Amino acid sequence: MWLQYEPITEKKVKDQYQRVLRHVVIKEDDPIILSAKNELEIAVKEMLDYEINWAEDVQDANFVIGNKKELAGFLEEGQRCLLADLADEGFIVQTINQKSYLVGNTDAGVMYGIHHFIRLMQMKADPSQLHIADQPKNQFRMINQWDNLDGSVERGYSGKSIFYQNGKIVKDKARIHDYARYLSSIGINSICINNVNVWEEETYFITKKYLPEIKEIADIFSSYAIRLYLSINFASPITIDGLSTADPLDGEVKQWWKDKVAEIYDYIPDFGGFIVKADSEHRPGPFTYNRDHADGANMLAEVLEPYDGKVIWRCFVYNCLQDWRDRATDRARAAYDHFKPLDGRFHENVLLQIKNGPLDFQVREPVSPLLGAMSQTNQLIEFQVAQEYTGQQIDLCYLIPQWKQVLAFDTHIKGPGSTISEIVAGNIHVYKHSGIAAVSNIGNDENWTGHTLAQANLYGYGRLTWDPSLSSQQIAEEWIIQTFGNQKEVLAKIEKMLLSSWKIYENYTAPLGVGWMVTPGIHYGPNIDGYEYSRWGTYHFADREGIGVDRTIETGTGYTSQYEEPNRFIYNILSECPDELLLFFHHVPYKYTLKNGETVIQHIYNTHFKGYEQVEDLMDIWNSLEHVMDNARFKHVQDRLYRQKMNAKEWRDQINSYFYRKSGIADQYNRTIY
Amino acid sequence: MWLQYEPITEKKVKDQYQRVLRHVVIKEDDPIILSAKNELEIAVKEMLDYEINWAEDVQDANFVIGNKKELAGFLEEGQRCLLADLADEGFIVQTINQKSYLVGNTDAGVMYGIHHFIRLMQMKADPSQLHIADQPKNQFRMINQWDNLDGSVERGYSGKSIFYQNGKIVKDKARIHDYARYLSSIGINSICINNVNVWEEETYFITKKYLPEIKEIADIFSSYAIRLYLSINFASPITIDGLSTADPLDGEVKQWWKDKVAEIYDYIPDFGGFIVKADSEHRPGPFTYNRDHADGANMLAEVLEPYDGKVIWRCFVYNCLQDWRDRATDRARAAYDHFKPLDGRFHENVLLQIKNGPLDFQVREPVSPLLGAMSQTNQLIEFQVAQEYTGQQIDLCYLIPQWKQVLAFDTHIKGPGSTISEIVAGNIHVYKHSGIAAVSNIGNDENWTGHTLAQANLYGYGRLTWDPSLSSQQIAEEWIIQTFGNQKEVLAKIEKMLLSSWKIYENYTAPLGVGWMVTPGIHYGPNIDGYEYSRWGTYHFADREGIGVDRTIETGTGYTSQYEEPNRFIYNILSECPDELLLFFHHVPYKYTLKNGETVIQHIYNTHFKGYEQVEDLMDIWNSLEHVMDNARFKHVQDRLYRQKMNAKEWRDQINSYFYRKSGIADQYNRTIY
Repeated sequence: MWLQYEPITEKKVKDQYQRVLRHVVIKEDDPIILSAKNELEIAVKEMLDYEINWAEDVQDANFVIGNKKELAGFLEEGQRCLLADLADEGFIVQTINQKSYLVGNTDAGVMYGIHHFIRLMQMKADPSQLHIADQPKNQFRMINQWDNLDGSVERGYSGKSIFYQNGKIVKDKARIHDYARYLSSIGINSICINNVNVWEEETYFITKKYLPEIKEIADIFSSYAIRLYLSINFASPITIDGLSTADPLDGEVKQWWKDKVAEIYDYIPDFGGFIVKADSEHRPGPFTYNRDHADGANMLAEVLEPYDGKVIWRCFVYNCLQDWRDRATDRARAAYDHFKPLDGRFHENVLLQIKNGPLDFQVREPVSPLLGAMSQTNQLIEFQVAQEYTGQQIDLCYLIPQWKQVLAFDTHIKGPGSTISEIVAGNIHVYKHSGIAAVSNIGNDENWTGHTLAQANLYGYGRLTWDPSLSSQQIAEEWIIQTFGNQKEVLAKIEKMLLSSWKIYENYTAPLGVGWMVTPGIHYGPNIDGYEYSRWGTYHFADREGIGVDRTIETGTGYTSQYEEPNRFIYNILSECPDELLLFFHHVPYKYTLKNGETVIQHIYNTHFKGYEQVEDLMDIWNSLEHVMDNARFKHVQDRLYRQKMNAKEWRDQINSYFYRKSGIADQYNRTIY
Repeated sequence: MWLQYEPITEKKVKDQYQRVLRHVVIKEDDPIILSAKNELEIAVKEMLDYEINWAEDVQDANFVIGNKKELAGFLEEGQRCLLADLADEGFIVQTINQKSYLVGNTDAGVMYGIHHFIRLMQMKADPSQLHIADQPKNQFRMINQWDNLDGSVERGYSGKSIFYQNGKIVKDKARIHDYARYLSSIGINSICINNVNVWEEETYFITKKYLPEIKEIADIFSSYAIRLYLSINFASPITIDGLSTADPLDGEVKQWWKDKVAEIYDYIPDFGGFIVKADSEHRPGPFTYNRDHADGANMLAEVLEPYDGKVIWRCFVYNCLQDWRDRATDRARAAYDHFKPLDGRFHENVLLQIKNGPLDFQVREPVSPLLGAMSQTNQLIEFQVAQEYTGQQIDLCYLIPQWKQVLAFDTHIKGPGSTISEIVAGNIHVYKHSGIAAVSNIGNDENWTGHTLAQANLYGYGRLTWDPSLSSQQIAEEWIIQTFGNQKEVLAKIEKMLLSSWKIYENYTAPLGVGWMVTPGIHYGPNIDGYEYSRWGTYHFADREGIGVDRTIETGTGYTSQYEEPNRFIYNILSECPDELLLFFHHVPYKYTLKNGETVIQHIYNTHFKGYEQVEDLMDIWNSLEHVMDNARFKHVQDRLYRQKMNAKEWRDQINSYFYRKSGIADQYNRTIY
């Protein structure tokens, strides 16, 4: 992936770095510093073909690395002030009188500083006059593995799990170690290593049967400043020890969890805590005992508190046995309706994990109105790096622009500027803990992510959690240079492919924010009515006159009322609603005219013909890179693009035929519709 | 099932049978006679609470049982003539001078005679003056198990396999033995014990690894006059012995099969032969080597011939990678187009197995035009007792009326009277071998068939293969009395349920012969567009104006030309086409008026509202039986009916909503459509 460290061939750059790295001193205190040192050694060896000459004494060194405590005596006032302004994980990299300093507030800060420095080297930035002070914007920068003990990965499109195989934790943990390196290099500091849907055997992860091996994994991540979390089964006391109840207010249950948590921390002293998917899609939870989510989360929070452990409680709670005949119930409302009334009831070490949109990682959704709506409850936003609904790493879909748009969304919850980015950074309401989580897209495929270009999503996710102000283009460039080198042609072309890909995917799939229309279960490929008569609360209500879901206050489900003004007004009023979300919020006739001047039906035809052509363009661009690309990666991506084209063709023709057959309105350009 | 033998309580009947069975003599020659004798003993013991007093000497006996050879010296001229007129498996049961004779042309005939006699006893017929001469109408009366070695049953709705479990043949063969009893009692004489889709490990069934155990199973069936067949993988020479080809014209391949067949017959001297699904749905076959089906079948036929073995070659061959955009290709044409040109090329011991309809066991299809269309090629018709598309043994669907309708269909292939029934009996063209096959509906559920009332389909299937002239009602009555006793109320009500059930199922599912509209893969529950944009050749082409598949000669796929006149004319001309098949043959506007006076759209609404109500009626009827029914069976069927109601509701509402949304035409009775 992005740590492949091609040798630097430009003499000038090489000389500059060798000069800076002439005599390096680093304080070898703990596993994190050792890992960081190791990272630097690998990078320097591979890029500069050079063994670092480690100095013993700070005075002799021309590059000083360490945390601020260790280096206290050597720092100037200015440096100390800079560091004091930064969060624990912050760092500075500075050149003062031809001497370089890489100082972290903590060992983790040192680790991030070294990754930053290595990245500069990969990007061939001039290292001679550095003045960097950096820190993460978000406290929680988390990745969630949806891996199962049998080796499968729920919504995994990159082979099997790197953590589990055939019902066992893998013996050879080299791949896990590499994963820790990748994650820390992009700033991730938390990982949950098992699926939020905790099945029978995985329930026992929190027992002696598995804890010794999980401890080994925790140690690996720990040495890269990443804390390990586990998804738990809310009914564990029943499953594991045959208790008659899992009622969170039951004394025996509470004692059970207390003992359990003590046992876990005995193995893993820096254990992060629990992720809980409760009362959602048939998972057990407090509802069974007439308790609410706060009761459930707080019981766990109390027993984790003494250890600084956290409860991450997922808000993906909705009625998955809905009746499609019932147009009053609206799944989009569910998270807000369930959790908003509980604001203020959660303990300080509980974080609610809220999907970015109100439904489920569609190619286009509005931002979840629950985000920011609870001033006294810690929140994490949840993205999905795995491309469940966005092409499954067969189709190219660079998701950074989507996440950027979500993070930039202004909720107006406390007036203008109340963006999601600031909310999850804990700057709008004063959250004790908050940040960003996401579902991982990796597996044991050789290239980690199925589609090689899908590596950019994992890379970009990490970078965004650290610094949401980075642009999609910056992130793309960083990733391309680190992955494919800095040839101008390669950079420009792949960047163009990445940056256009989300919109292209949207063009040939479900139109105007209506979502779904995918093959049920699999979630790849078109099935326009696939979720229309289902129990999942996922409808488009297309008839011969029009399409869309009326979520307005006056005539619809009232979902729009969950937003603050002016968003409420914008979404609620047909004429104000942005085209891209029109069918999410309104039911309109096929001949309704969009802001762009097209009718809805003509827009559907236009975007679907165009989306397919754009995939052909992607293929052309990629094919033009054959002469500058290694054959393996060239063929691999070429093959994925061909499969994407076949998929785009199916989408184009099924969507167009479906709506032509239903509306009876011909394409104004007379293109082929079946 | 139907061999549960309730004690006869009516004194008169009991006395009559005890009198007839006072001194019975039977020739114990071979395993079949032993089984037959055993059957009689069990039945008499349980129904009459009486141990048969077996006589040694025919002179002393008042009931003489045996085959005509053994009894030659004791038969009168009239009896001999009667027997001479009957097929090998025929028998007579006669009373002459207060002495009863049960004589079969063969041991198998004796077995069938005894089953017949037992059935009389179950039906409480007067046994004192019997004058029965009976024989099977069809030479082949076959059942196909779609069982896999892992214990699963393809399209099985009654639990797991009774033959296989966890990758092995079951050790305890008691259930297989019982199955043999059931099958022989209804006249079945052939069984294929493995899925026509032969997977990796099942390919080895024809090797030493499995043959010893398969021989055990063959012996069980053999003792009930049932020959055992195996489905084979056409690519066996490659898979099993690493040959480089499976080309049927290759000398080495032929030799391989010759040796293989010798080996099989070494284990199982009365082995029936092979069933082959070749070049169908991704199964290997002769097409790979540019050979045709005749080449493939004949190669196997030649090596089986010396052992009197047969090749049963399935005609379920079509393009399963069709493009839904292509309206010229018509899957319904496929079997005829593939096989008709090969007439006269097949060996005498090859039988073509042809599904009853041109598509795939839909609730309503026309009869396959290939049936009877080959005057020089042996044919078997294939039914499906398993309710794949007809409710999966959750919904009640008594299929005998459907099969009766198929068998009664007059192809006119050699003028009026060329019915399917006569064709597969070998009476229209002179077939050396022919008959009826069907996919079984049994599994290891306690009641064998998932839905207890679905036992009637297996029972009726067997009875029909023996005597297609039996009416649906007669068969239902026989089965009900044997299964639930002869209480008038029970008989009348269950009979009403059974006889109305096919039409009810049709009412709430896909309308007017158009078929499909089921959940892809699973084939249960509605999904109106589920197969519409698929590769399976299964479309309804509904748009906002109308629906149906144009299969006419002039404007459609020309499928109708595969029928003889007058069927060709009837199906081809819109005004002649029977309502029930209208959408199979024609694309019509929603406002097209049916022969029954309703428009198509109103018919759809009417039948779907009615179908659901009829299921409620079925529930009422069943509920009224609570006081006369054992609790276990009452609750069981009640539960199935409830599930059927839920299914009917889904079908009703989805079909109605789909067509209302598409047509925009309101129900004239203003019933609720969503």
